[in-house]
Amino acid sequence: MGMVLGIDIGGTSIKAGLFTESGTLVSTKKIPTGKLVNEDAFAVVIGGLEELLSTNGASPLDVVAAGLDVPGPVDDNGQVAMMPNAELDAEGLKAAMAGAFPNMTLAFANDVNAAAVGEMWKGAAKGVPSFALVALGTGVGAGVVVSGKLVSGAFGAGGEFGHITVNRGETSACGCGRHGCLEQYASASGVVRSYRRECSERGIEAVHLQGPTDTLSVFEAYRSGDEAAKAAISLMCDSLGFALAQVSTIIDPSLYLIGGGMGEGFDLFAQELRAAFKAHCLPTCADARILPAALGNEAAMYGDAYLAMKSAGAFES
Amino acid sequence: MGMVLGIDIGGTSIKAGLFTESGTLVSTKKIPTGKLVNEDAFAVVIGGLEELLSTNGASPLDVVAAGLDVPGPVDDNGQVAMMPNAELDAEGLKAAMAGAFPNMTLAFANDVNAAAVGEMWKGAAKGVPSFALVALGTGVGAGVVVSGKLVSGAFGAGGEFGHITVNRGETSACGCGRHGCLEQYASASGVVRSYRRECSERGIEAVHLQGPTDTLSVFEAYRSGDEAAKAAISLMCDSLGFALAQVSTIIDPSLYLIGGGMGEGFDLFAQELRAAFKAHCLPTCADARILPAALGNEAAMYGDAYLAMKSAGAFES
Repeated sequence: MGMVLGIDIGGTSIKAGLFTESGTLVSTKKIPTGKLVNEDAFAVVIGGLEELLSTNGASPLDVVAAGLDVPGPVDDNGQVAMMPNAELDAEGLKAAMAGAFPNMTLAFANDVNAAAVGEMWKGAAKGVPSFALVALGTGVGAGVVVSGKLVSGAFGAGGEFGHITVNRGETSACGCGRHGCLEQYASASGVVRSYRRECSERGIEAVHLQGPTDTLSVFEAYRSGDEAAKAAISLMCDSLGFALAQVSTIIDPSLYLIGGGMGEGFDLFAQELRAAFKAHCLPTCADARILPAALGNEAAMYGDAYLAMKSAGAFES
Repeated sequence: MGMVLGIDIGGTSIKAGLFTESGTLVSTKKIPTGKLVNEDAFAVVIGGLEELLSTNGASPLDVVAAGLDVPGPVDDNGQVAMMPNAELDAEGLKAAMAGAFPNMTLAFANDVNAAAVGEMWKGAAKGVPSFALVALGTGVGAGVVVSGKLVSGAFGAGGEFGHITVNRGETSACGCGRHGCLEQYASASGVVRSYRRECSERGIEAVHLQGPTDTLSVFEAYRSGDEAAKAAISLMCDSLGFALAQVSTIIDPSLYLIGGGMGEGFDLFAQELRAAFKAHCLPTCADARILPAALGNEAAMYGDAYLAMKSAGAFES
């Protein structure tokens, strides 16, 4: 029986899903890894995948397709761009995979794009032809689907919502070198930074934070009535609502899904985010829905499998 | 022989193109019209189209498809939204057309979207899967094509680049009720307004203008070294370059085409526009090309015919 692997590469581990050729999830496995830059690291990945196969009665020869996502730009042709802080040798891993699974077609995708495809296939965007999944995490990324097709972009920058300019007057620089990017206000580190600034402006002490991206503690402070936390989250909502209003004037999707680590606080900020979107958008687009993503941290794994099956010729009518 | 009509509706006339079923343009005809809101007006259109057919040896029964563009939102399903200043009764015209050409499939499109499709089919975007055509005219509109498909949008607002916010600090309102829209700086009326303001700030007299959208005279002044005209066109380029930089973070096309009435001045502002785009965009997208549209005011007519053929089942593989 033909089997398909969906492989989501994280910072310290990979999450692999084993699917049948018809798209049913058989089993998942978390494989702890270091940086995927040499043969030893590739061997750990291959070993883990082989184990996932054998415990489910399948052999490496059964793998007809594998999808693999990377935390960087992948263009419309599936080409992985050079990653500045190389955590991954995509070409090396590709060669190791091809050696271990000789019957396999391999597809690459950007991680957030893969998550968007996962939500389209099995999650909150099922049956929705045009939508965007916004992942609020360490940074802000998005996966854009238009007419049922992922928009990776000519240079792999499709869905780089984190770099929509929301404040042309910003003086501090974003990681990209530009100023006033959405990411500066709506990423986890952006929200924590805003919170600390709001505290210091009010001359109050910040709650204890577990590091520069600990939005859970900021959310907690918000719940207990902390004004500085409220201001930080308002700025996040206003910035994100403004950015999505810009997206609507360009591709006008019917649905925005909010995911990523901070997406878990969706209920807390949903009302304010929706109000900000409505306040900033063209009246025509005001009925676009803003909902939480459904598949959590398994979305990319699903999307990887879907893209793998697609590149192997499935879903063709 | 099956024939196809591409019909571009303008303010005071319609431009109709007669095509063979395989997409060859046979002949065009300009038909002067008033507002297309009653049977008399529809009869003028039908009469003109029948004449175009008969002078080319074809009969109304030969028409297998017709595409018609309207100056307002049309959604992904081809539904024409209500137009606020009704110049056109789309349903009425549809019924009249159906009566006159009984074998015809009719497709509607937004006018700028149709022009984008025309450029993709026979113009400057041939063979380019993802691009946007920006029409700089009385307003600023755009047609977006992603993976070879027009993006009309869930609410018909796909490509509303004129309403990308480029200046959150703007105090005067755009026609849409929001503030700081691209259209306020990069439409013909926007450029003329900027020019007049720049003149008055400098205490110099504006050149003679033939009305509130006479950018030709502003371009002329620019060529003869007028500093106020230079400032107005710089603001236009900066605003448009900034807006296209936002578009690139969302759909990352490889090509922008500049069309519309003001597109005829492309050579004059191309260098400054390209520099503004590069200054504002994510470094990844900096190689997107900015070129003039090729089909001028026939682009929409071509696009209408293409969309008509498509809705009648042509181009299916």
